[in-house]
Amino acid sequence: MGVVVQNIERADPAVIAGLAECGVATVHEAQGRKGLLASYMRPVYPGARVAASAVTISAPPGDNWMLHVAIEQLQEGDILVLAPTSPCSDGYFGDLLATSARARGCAGLVIDAGVRDIRDLTEMQFPVWSKAVFAQGTVKETLGSVNVPVVCAAAHIIPGDVIVADDDGVCVVRREDAADVLSKARAREANEESKRARLASGELGLDIYDMRSCLADKGLKYV
Amino acid sequence: MGVVVQNIERADPAVIAGLAECGVATVHEAQGRKGLLASYMRPVYPGARVAASAVTISAPPGDNWMLHVAIEQLQEGDILVLAPTSPCSDGYFGDLLATSARARGCAGLVIDAGVRDIRDLTEMQFPVWSKAVFAQGTVKETLGSVNVPVVCAAAHIIPGDVIVADDDGVCVVRREDAADVLSKARAREANEESKRARLASGELGLDIYDMRSCLADKGLKYV
Amino acid sequence: MGVVVQNIERADPAVIAGLAECGVATVHEAQGRKGLLASYMRPVYPGARVAASAVTISAPPGDNWMLHVAIEQLQEGDILVLAPTSPCSDGYFGDLLATSARARGCAGLVIDAGVRDIRDLTEMQFPVWSKAVFAQGTVKETLGSVNVPVVCAAAHIIPGDVIVADDDGVCVVRREDAADVLSKARAREANEESKRARLASGELGLDIYDMRSCLADKGLKYV
Amino acid sequence: MGVVVQNIERADPAVIAGLAECGVATVHEAQGRKGLLASYMRPVYPGARVAASAVTISAPPGDNWMLHVAIEQLQEGDILVLAPTSPCSDGYFGDLLATSARARGCAGLVIDAGVRDIRDLTEMQFPVWSKAVFAQGTVKETLGSVNVPVVCAAAHIIPGDVIVADDDGVCVVRREDAADVLSKARAREANEESKRARLASGELGLDIYDMRSCLADKGLKYV
Amino acid sequence: MGVVVQNIERADPAVIAGLAECGVATVHEAQGRKGLLASYMRPVYPGARVAASAVTISAPPGDNWMLHVAIEQLQEGDILVLAPTSPCSDGYFGDLLATSARARGCAGLVIDAGVRDIRDLTEMQFPVWSKAVFAQGTVKETLGSVNVPVVCAAAHIIPGDVIVADDDGVCVVRREDAADVLSKARAREANEESKRARLASGELGLDIYDMRSCLADKGLKYV
Amino acid sequence: MGVVVQNIERADPAVIAGLAECGVATVHEAQGRKGLLASYMRPVYPGARVAASAVTISAPPGDNWMLHVAIEQLQEGDILVLAPTSPCSDGYFGDLLATSARARGCAGLVIDAGVRDIRDLTEMQFPVWSKAVFAQGTVKETLGSVNVPVVCAAAHIIPGDVIVADDDGVCVVRREDAADVLSKARAREANEESKRARLASGELGLDIYDMRSCLADKGLKYV
Repeated sequence: MGVVVQNIERADPAVIAGLAECGVATVHEAQGRKGLLASYMRPVYPGARVAASAVTISAPPGDNWMLHVAIEQLQEGDILVLAPTSPCSDGYFGDLLATSARARGCAGLVIDAGVRDIRDLTEMQFPVWSKAVFAQGTVKETLGSVNVPVVCAAAHIIPGDVIVADDDGVCVVRREDAADVLSKARAREANEESKRARLASGELGLDIYDMRSCLADKGLKYV
Repeated sequence: MGVVVQNIERADPAVIAGLAECGVATVHEAQGRKGLLASYMRPVYPGARVAASAVTISAPPGDNWMLHVAIEQLQEGDILVLAPTSPCSDGYFGDLLATSARARGCAGLVIDAGVRDIRDLTEMQFPVWSKAVFAQGTVKETLGSVNVPVVCAAAHIIPGDVIVADDDGVCVVRREDAADVLSKARAREANEESKRARLASGELGLDIYDMRSCLADKGLKYV
Repeated sequence: MGVVVQNIERADPAVIAGLAECGVATVHEAQGRKGLLASYMRPVYPGARVAASAVTISAPPGDNWMLHVAIEQLQEGDILVLAPTSPCSDGYFGDLLATSARARGCAGLVIDAGVRDIRDLTEMQFPVWSKAVFAQGTVKETLGSVNVPVVCAAAHIIPGDVIVADDDGVCVVRREDAADVLSKARAREANEESKRARLASGELGLDIYDMRSCLADKGLKYV
Repeated sequence: MGVVVQNIERADPAVIAGLAECGVATVHEAQGRKGLLASYMRPVYPGARVAASAVTISAPPGDNWMLHVAIEQLQEGDILVLAPTSPCSDGYFGDLLATSARARGCAGLVIDAGVRDIRDLTEMQFPVWSKAVFAQGTVKETLGSVNVPVVCAAAHIIPGDVIVADDDGVCVVRREDAADVLSKARAREANEESKRARLASGELGLDIYDMRSCLADKGLKYV
Repeated sequence: MGVVVQNIERADPAVIAGLAECGVATVHEAQGRKGLLASYMRPVYPGARVAASAVTISAPPGDNWMLHVAIEQLQEGDILVLAPTSPCSDGYFGDLLATSARARGCAGLVIDAGVRDIRDLTEMQFPVWSKAVFAQGTVKETLGSVNVPVVCAAAHIIPGDVIVADDDGVCVVRREDAADVLSKARAREANEESKRARLASGELGLDIYDMRSCLADKGLKYV
Repeated sequence: MGVVVQNIERADPAVIAGLAECGVATVHEAQGRKGLLASYMRPVYPGARVAASAVTISAPPGDNWMLHVAIEQLQEGDILVLAPTSPCSDGYFGDLLATSARARGCAGLVIDAGVRDIRDLTEMQFPVWSKAVFAQGTVKETLGSVNVPVVCAAAHIIPGDVIVADDDGVCVVRREDAADVLSKARAREANEESKRARLASGELGLDIYDMRSCLADKGLKYV
C-alpha cells in the first residue's frame, strides 16, 4: 500500500466512445459474458451512460484520502474506480470532490462503498455507480494506493481498463481487448436490429432461432 | 420439468381491469391480506400499474430458454411470471424479449431474478417487477416448464391467477376469487373515500374508528 | 409499553428551518459525524428535504395502532418517527394515514419498517424515509408507546430531537444541540463555498488542504 | 384466517421412516430436484435427521398463539411447520413449547422465523430448523390458521406432506408421492454406493460417467 | 469523540451473577421485552453464558485503537461492548487482545463488527458475541471514546449497564433496573417450572392458559 | 470459457506447510493485509486448518460439470477453488465428489456457492469453506474453465496461488510471494509470542506499544 502509479496506458478514445454507445449488456455479451460488477452497484440517478479509462483507488475502509491523490492523476475522460480494502458503506465522495474531479476532466465514479450529496451530484449530472448512499463521513489518516489492480464489486480491474456503465450496471473491458470487443459489440447490435424487427412483427424466437427441434430432443412435452 | 400446459383458464377481462384500478394495497386488503410477493420485488421504473393473467415459467438458474417457449403461450393481456428453481439474479430478460412479448400482447413481466436493458424497457414502457437489475447473460441449455404452479418471491402462483402490480409491489389473486375480490376491493375503496375526507378535515382516526375506549381498556396511559 | 407522553419540548422553529437548508451531510459533519440513521433508510421519492421535531413511536411488529395515537400528538411541523420493537417490513403507513397526519401539520415520516400507497404519497408530496415499500397490512391489537426514546435504524432518538432528512438519508440532532449545530453547519457551508470555487477552477485538494507533505511523511510513493 | 383443519391425511409411517434414512440431498434428487426450502433454514444444532408429516401453521408476524392451537392437532411423529404471514425473525418457540410439543409426540419444528432457548432445545435434542435465533418475545392477540397450505421459506407445503430435514436443510415431499420418491431414493442410494467405491479407488467421474466426448463436442480445450 | 470516562457505576455483583443464571430469554421477558441486540449477534462458540457490566467503546470503522484504551478501564468481571461509528465487519479483536483483556478480569466481548483468531478464543473459552468472523486487520489512527453511551446492534447501551449473553444472543439491562429485573426473572423462572411439568405431562397450553374461549371469541373455526 | 490449463506452477510444499501452521490471520497480516476472501466464506465444520495450491474453476451458475474436469488436474495436496460466473448458492459439491477428490489427493474445497452432504463431509473430515449449505442440485450442460484466474468471494486468485484457510476464513497468497510471506509470518509469530506473555501478566498494550503520548497528541481526554 501507499503507491501511486503515474503513467498508465489507456485505450483509444474512439473505441471508448463506441463502447459507451453499445452499453453494458451488449458489451458484456460481446466479450463472452465476463467483466460485470455485482448487481448491487446502482446508478445514483437514472439515464447516465459512460465509458472511460479506469483510474483505480485501493482505499482503507472509511478513509477517502486517496481520492484527492487520484484526482491529480486523472486525464480528460477518465473514470475513478474505488475499492475499499474491506467492506464499507461510508460516504467517501460528495459534491466537493465531484467538483474537483470534473474540473480535471473526470467522467464519473464507480465505488464499492457509499456516496453523499446525491442531490448535488444529480444536479451536476456527475454520474456515480455505488453500493450505497450514505452521508457517513470519512477520515484522511491512512494511505492506500492509486492505479494498482483492484477487485471492485467482484470484478478484477486493472488501471487503464475501460469501464462501461449505464442503467444496467457496470462492466469492465480489458484495455488491450477494447477494440476487439467494440467490433464484436457492433456486430451484435447489427444482428439484434434485424432480430428486433422480426420479433416486433410477432415472429417467435422459437422460430427465428430454430429452437423447436432442440426442445423436442431434450424432451419438452406440450399438454 | 419440461412440460408446457397450453390451455389455461383466465379470469374475466373486465374483472382484471377493475383489479388494476384498485391497485396492490387495496386488493391485498380486500382478499384478507394474502397473496403478496416479497418486498424485494420492485418495478424497473415508477408509475406502472397493471393487472393480468399469469403465464407462469419455472426456469433453471441462469437459463432463459423457457421464456421463448412461454411467449408463444401468451394471449392478449397476459403477464409473464418467472420463478427460477433456485435463487438467481441473472438478467433473463431484456429489450429483444420485451419486443417479442409485446408483439404477442404481453402486459408485463414479474420475475424473481434479474432483468437488463432497463433503459429500453423504460422507453418502451414495458412494465417489469424484478428482484434485481443485472446484465449477466443466461444460457439456453436446460428445460423448465410453462404454466405450472410456481412459488415466486414467496407467493404460490397458479397459471391463470390474476397478478396485480404497481409501485407498491405485486399481489396474486386466485382466478376463481377474482370477481369476489374485486367487489370487496370496490367496497373498500368507497369506504376509504369517505374516511379520507374526514381525515383530511382533521378528524382523528382515534375518533372515526372509535379507538379510545379500546386503547384505555388495554391500559394505554397518557402522561 | 403503553405510554403516551403528551408534552415534549421542541427546538426553535427558525433553527429547525435552518437545519433543513443545510441538509443531512452538512449537519452530520457539523455535529461531529454522529446521529446518522442506517443507509437502508431511503426516501420514497427523490427531492424531499425536511427538518422537523420528532414525535416518536415504539410499535410492535406488524401493528400500526400507535400511529393513530401519535397523530393526535402532532404539532405543526413535527415529523413522525416509528421504530418497531423487533425488525419488521410491513406496510404500517399509507395514504389515509398520510392524509390524517398532513391535516394535523405533519412534515413527514421516518419509519424503520415498510410503507405502502407510495404512488399516492408521491402525488401528495408527503415525504417518507423507510426501510421498505411493502403493501403488507398491519393489525391494531397491541399497545406501543408514543414520545419515548427509541432506537430507529441504529440511531438513538429522543422525542423533540430534530430530524433532518433528504436524498442522502436521515440524521438526528439532539434538541438542545440544535442551535449550536446550525451555527457550525452554517460555518461549514461558508467554508465549503470558497473551497468549491477553488476546486472548480482546477486547483487540487492536495494543495488546498496542504496534504502533500503529510502523505510523504506517511510514506506514499509515486512511481 | 382463523381456521383449524382437524383431519389431515398422512403418509405411511414406514415410508416416512425410509425418507429420513435417505436424507435431504438424496430425496431432493429422487423427486426431480424440487421441494427444497431456502438455504437460510439452518438447524439449531448439528446432527439431527428427521422425516415427519407436516402440521402447518400460518401465523401473524410476532404472534405465536397458533402454536398452542397446533400442538393439540399433533399426532405421534408429526412435525410443526410455521410460516409467518409476513417476514419476521421473532422467537416464536422455546423450551416450554418444545416440552409441550414433545409430550404430544412432536418430531421437531421447521419455522421461517426465529426460535429461542436453544441451549435447552439442544439438551432436549428437540430438532429445529429456523431462519434465526432470536429471543424476541411474541404476543397472543391475532388468529392464524392450522393445517392450511403455506409457503414456508420458498416452498409450498400442504398439511400432511412429508418434511425431510437434516444438516443440509429441509425438503418437502408431497404426501401422495412419498412412496414413489422413497423407492427412487433407495435406487439412487444403491447406484451411488457403487459409484462411491469406484471414485474412492481413484477412477474419475470423467470416465465413470463417460463425459469426455461430450465435453470435447461442446468445445472444451486442454492447453 | 476522544473521551475516556474513567469512573462508571456498576450494578451489584450478586445481581449480575443472578442475571447470568436466568439467561437472555428470561431476562428479556422479565424486563418487558426490551433491550435485545439484533439477532445477527452470534456467539463465536456455543455454550457460553455471562452477565457483566458494560465498558463501552465507540470506535471508528476499521480502527481498534480504543480497545487498548478500554482494557485499562476494565474492572474484574466487566465485559467490553464495541460499536463502530459506521457499519464494519473488520476483525477488531483476536487472541492477543483477549489475553490482555482476560488478564484484566474481562468476562468477554460484545462487538457489532468482526473478530478473528476464533480457534484461540474458543480454546481460551473467552466468550465473544459478534456480527462477523473476519481476519481483516484494523489500524490505530483515529480516536474514539470509552464509556460513552452507544447504539450497538440496535440497542442503546449506557456504560455500567448489565449485559446478559448466551446462545440466544445478547440483552442489555439498565444498571438501575438490574435488581428489579432479577427478581422478576426469578419469579418468571418459578412460574415456568410449574408450567413445564404440566406441559411435559401432556396437558395443553390451550387449557393451562385458558385460551379456548378467547380463541372462540376471536372467531377461530375448527373444521 | 471452455479452457483447461494443465500445467500450473505450485509453491514449495514446505512453504505451504508452514503457511498452514501460521493460519489465516497471521498470514494476512504478514503479507500486508491483503488477499482475504469475503467474511461470508465459512467452514462447513470447525477446526480445519489447511494450506494448499489452488486449482481454480470458473463455473456457470448451477452447473458443476467442471468439478469433474478439475479433479483430474489435481496433484497431491492441491485445493479446489470454485467461483461461479454469476452469484449462485446451489449445492455444487457433495460426498461423491469429495470421495473422488480425496482419492486424487485433494486437501479441500473453497467455493463461492453452496455444498451439500455436510454430515458426510464432516465425517470424512474433508474441509470445505463455502458461501452456503444448500442441497439444490446442479446440471452438467455448460462449459467453464479450469486453472484460469478467478475472482472468488472478492479475492483475485491465480492457479497455483497458495490458499490458507481455517476457522477465521480464507486467504490467498501469490505463489511467488509464498516464501517471503512465510518468513514474515514466522517473524510475526515470534514477536507475538513475547507480547502475549507480557499481556497475560497484565501489562497493558498502551504501555507495551507506547501509545499514551500518541493518544494524548491526538487529543484523547480522560474525564
